[in-house]
Amino acid sequence: MAKPVSIQVWNPNGKYRVVSTKSMPGTRWINLLIQQDCRLEICTEKKTILSVEDTIALIGDKCDGVIGQLTEDWGEELFSALSKAGGKAFSNMAVGYNNVDVNAANKHGVAVGNTPGVLTETTAELAASLTLAAARRIVEADEFMRAGLYDGWLPHLFVGNLLKGQTVGVIGAGRIGSAYARMMVEGFKMNLIYFDLYQSTRLEKFVTAYGAFLKANGETPVTWKRAASMDEVLQEADIISLHPILDKTTYHLVNKERLAKMKKEAILINCSRGPVIDEVALVEHLKENPMFRVGLDVFEDEPYMKPGLAELKNAVVVPHIASASKWTREGMATLAALNVLGKIKGYPVWFDANRVEPFLNENAQPPAACPSIVNAKALSLPVSKL
Amino acid sequence: MAKPVSIQVWNPNGKYRVVSTKSMPGTRWINLLIQQDCRLEICTEKKTILSVEDTIALIGDKCDGVIGQLTEDWGEELFSALSKAGGKAFSNMAVGYNNVDVNAANKHGVAVGNTPGVLTETTAELAASLTLAAARRIVEADEFMRAGLYDGWLPHLFVGNLLKGQTVGVIGAGRIGSAYARMMVEGFKMNLIYFDLYQSTRLEKFVTAYGAFLKANGETPVTWKRAASMDEVLQEADIISLHPILDKTTYHLVNKERLAKMKKEAILINCSRGPVIDEVALVEHLKENPMFRVGLDVFEDEPYMKPGLAELKNAVVVPHIASASKWTREGMATLAALNVLGKIKGYPVWFDANRVEPFLNENAQPPAACPSIVNAKALSLPVSKL
Repeated sequence: MAKPVSIQVWNPNGKYRVVSTKSMPGTRWINLLIQQDCRLEICTEKKTILSVEDTIALIGDKCDGVIGQLTEDWGEELFSALSKAGGKAFSNMAVGYNNVDVNAANKHGVAVGNTPGVLTETTAELAASLTLAAARRIVEADEFMRAGLYDGWLPHLFVGNLLKGQTVGVIGAGRIGSAYARMMVEGFKMNLIYFDLYQSTRLEKFVTAYGAFLKANGETPVTWKRAASMDEVLQEADIISLHPILDKTTYHLVNKERLAKMKKEAILINCSRGPVIDEVALVEHLKENPMFRVGLDVFEDEPYMKPGLAELKNAVVVPHIASASKWTREGMATLAALNVLGKIKGYPVWFDANRVEPFLNENAQPPAACPSIVNAKALSLPVSKL
Repeated sequence: MAKPVSIQVWNPNGKYRVVSTKSMPGTRWINLLIQQDCRLEICTEKKTILSVEDTIALIGDKCDGVIGQLTEDWGEELFSALSKAGGKAFSNMAVGYNNVDVNAANKHGVAVGNTPGVLTETTAELAASLTLAAARRIVEADEFMRAGLYDGWLPHLFVGNLLKGQTVGVIGAGRIGSAYARMMVEGFKMNLIYFDLYQSTRLEKFVTAYGAFLKANGETPVTWKRAASMDEVLQEADIISLHPILDKTTYHLVNKERLAKMKKEAILINCSRGPVIDEVALVEHLKENPMFRVGLDVFEDEPYMKPGLAELKNAVVVPHIASASKWTREGMATLAALNVLGKIKGYPVWFDANRVEPFLNENAQPPAACPSIVNAKALSLPVSKL
């Protein structure tokens, strides 16, 4: 028998029992649950990853729904336990659900929620932050300053890249890639080259209109180009940001050969998924090309880095914080809670998981719907009408 | 007698002897001088600050001009030595010339050059880089990752600020302040509030036009406001960037009382001059308000920081690298060399020190003019016509 885990209880007399495997940012998600007659139990264990036994102990004999995290794998054993305890819903506080065996959830009739719709701008802003930090060598300059090594202004000290007028390359121009492209184009007057299997008409139209706007205001217009191949982007761009989905076709998309095609002083940014880059090849490339720089939010063996990366000054490395803004994280917590609550209440599934503004308005009751259930079709759940 | 300093000589048979007190980025400045019959001597001493004796040794008995740096003070003794050696010009590789006693230069008839016109965008981009690094806690997140402390995605890990829709406050809306304002407004859809003694009509008009452009494209327009007081900016803005000149009226412009007026989770950026902030008060404020963050390129006692600053995680500190892009630093080296060369050749002074593009075109000979001489009037130097 597993040891009991420590929990914090809200609204002990609530009718429905909802468990959250971690503390989450903000208080709105808590209030929404307890106002709707839920007894909420939040696990307060300090460890980052709970064991299956820990989670089973949290589920207990009676549990209507669980809010969980990417850190725990949810498979047959947990969905079986949740189903036996009367549970109807599990929601990740995340867009991705690689950690969830959806077939197992289907088998036990458990709805699986996720939280899209609030990550685009925050993720694109992190890609922009990594770009600027790499371009201006902020991390190594900060380390030098703190170490007391600065003894006066020098012409060669931490010379970096001016972005204005350079070319930004975007691999994968979906929501996040397009938002990032616009930040670099509009903010820093960079020219755009992108590669995507699908034409991003909306982005192209916008950049065309923005270029005309600049020209009308007496400034140099920006340009855009859709590349015929990924290699064309690698060869022409000064900054390259990766925004593909991860599947078999994008595993090690950036490998030794492709790194060799990039400019010697290019900057590579990855806020998508770690295995999109062959990280061993990247470490070698960074060692051999000290003016090549990289900004990484994700890693092939997350939470670990490949040997050598942590010692390289031409890398900026952050621990998967692309969605870590207060607004986004509180929004994700709210959406995860409402997925679970909605299924318990028998609400339909919201018609568009990417248009979730009504759920985020703090001055109004949220719609009577589950914001996003990934196995809604498999479970034949009804869909909300506009 | 001072020890001789180590030098590297270019074009030993050149007619005019020009000395550079430091190695400078790029090679164009070297080529321009040696193509115009200059013997160029570049000091290769490793120390950051040369002594007066070192510089006198560099000047020697015959010297037509010197290219120097902010790190050395130039006063009576050096201008006297340069004048006695037949020198006609000294140019800082910098916009500022606090290190130069211009009266002493005037007395000895030595022209003093500086290098404006190439720093605006690079400096504004550093302010933007510090803003994003502070907003997303890049430096502390990188340190955490490198230390191997990351063991899995967590809802509360390095949660920062989403910029979109927030308000950027600019104190001093001159060239650099305006360029920074536009980066944040256009790049991140922030609303603008600014304070300046002078109305920035050009900036206001542009942001108005940009807001209308966004609206015409179906997006939320950005707004702007000229504040009646600096305190209004401090109270309303989420991000505040300082771009005033340093004089008696702006010394300790940001002090304890003004820090207290800012939002508890605001971000303060300074790429102007160190003494604009009371750094002791800032350290106290950062200690008491862990969610308040700061990005600093300049320091009150540069190259030193006030006690405690180096230990604070809510500060990003870089060693005066605002102008440190390859394009700008090579441009500054070119302009400094052309200031000295132009005076030696008897060329007039360029009509507008901020419109220096013709001097930077690598595919053409530069104009026969000194790009920027700060004491041109005192020396009654002729001015170039368009």
